[in-house]
Amino acid sequence: MGFVVYPGFTGLDLVGPHEVLVRIEEAECLLAGSSLEPVASSGGLRFVPDHTFAGCPSLDVLVVPGGPGQGAAMDDRELISFLAERAAQAAWTAGVCTGALLLAQAGVLRGRRATTHWLAMRELERLGARPVRARVARDGTTITGAGVSAGIDLALWLVDLLAGSEEAQRIQLAIEYDPQPPYDSGRPEKAPPHIVEGLRQRSRFSQEGA
Amino acid sequence: MGFVVYPGFTGLDLVGPHEVLVRIEEAECLLAGSSLEPVASSGGLRFVPDHTFAGCPSLDVLVVPGGPGQGAAMDDRELISFLAERAAQAAWTAGVCTGALLLAQAGVLRGRRATTHWLAMRELERLGARPVRARVARDGTTITGAGVSAGIDLALWLVDLLAGSEEAQRIQLAIEYDPQPPYDSGRPEKAPPHIVEGLRQRSRFSQEGA
Repeated sequence: MGFVVYPGFTGLDLVGPHEVLVRIEEAECLLAGSSLEPVASSGGLRFVPDHTFAGCPSLDVLVVPGGPGQGAAMDDRELISFLAERAAQAAWTAGVCTGALLLAQAGVLRGRRATTHWLAMRELERLGARPVRARVARDGTTITGAGVSAGIDLALWLVDLLAGSEEAQRIQLAIEYDPQPPYDSGRPEKAPPHIVEGLRQRSRFSQEGA
Repeated sequence: MGFVVYPGFTGLDLVGPHEVLVRIEEAECLLAGSSLEPVASSGGLRFVPDHTFAGCPSLDVLVVPGGPGQGAAMDDRELISFLAERAAQAAWTAGVCTGALLLAQAGVLRGRRATTHWLAMRELERLGARPVRARVARDGTTITGAGVSAGIDLALWLVDLLAGSEEAQRIQLAIEYDPQPPYDSGRPEKAPPHIVEGLRQRSRFSQEGA
């Protein structure tokens, strides 16, 4: 299973699903980047890639995180080509948060049902996907998740598809995934309107009214 | 805010709370390790520390992840001393999953209410803390979380304490933390008994009947 890294990706977009998928019996997970130099997440965590895009072995599962760096990454031809080529060969291709926009840019989501961060839904549509408001959306061999933390749920669904329900439940219990946040404001329909509006104003997608 | 890394820590124990805390306005987060060489998580992710323990600036918040490497780390005098010293100076000290055992080893949780991964509760008691079955447990300036993914909830509680409820709700919405896993097996009371027993058998704490 290969996880893509690029400057400014969101750490949890990658590590959420990685923590789940790496626990599948005999799973091998690797990070692929443009070079073997450390890549900084948007929060400043520095991850060391295991392979370059050029040197990356074949992948059964391709996972693409989103993040503030997704904007610049849309113009990274090597990255976008890598996604197009590897998604065509992989059994499953997963996009977390605005990672779906990168997959859409690579042509992987054309006409497919997909989801992304709530602030980026219109952008996903503009790129040729069929956006659905869902925590996790599957269409054929592609599976996409909503914002950031949705990568954990996406990965548990993927475990269910790859290794069955027992394994998905085992991993959920191993990571004690029984969420109890102090508030219930995890999506725009639930959060106070002024907090929703504040994030919308500051979003890099806000110009498009997303 | 400083996050401790050591070989075999669990990636999500660190990145879950990091993704939340780094989003507080003007927060500065750093990783501290025994050297500046990359440190591999239990899942094989390699993180580059920003500071050595010796060279780490003063910390307002100290965050300690757990993981399979916690066992060996209990005997790492430099790490345990670092935790004892920095916890005494920090405004808040947080332990995620079996990170609480490291804090207990450092004497930070003596007589304090604390939680940890469900498989490690007895071990936590043996180390002098007062274990409570809770997603997040606070006692004075220490705050501890249950297994792995509980670090996200812990961090949102910490944002609430540090920066208020508006900020906690804003960050929860920004990371779209509205969990919808495919199963409801995130703690032993909810999971199928044979899956609970399977994990118990394979646990490194199982000898103690934890």
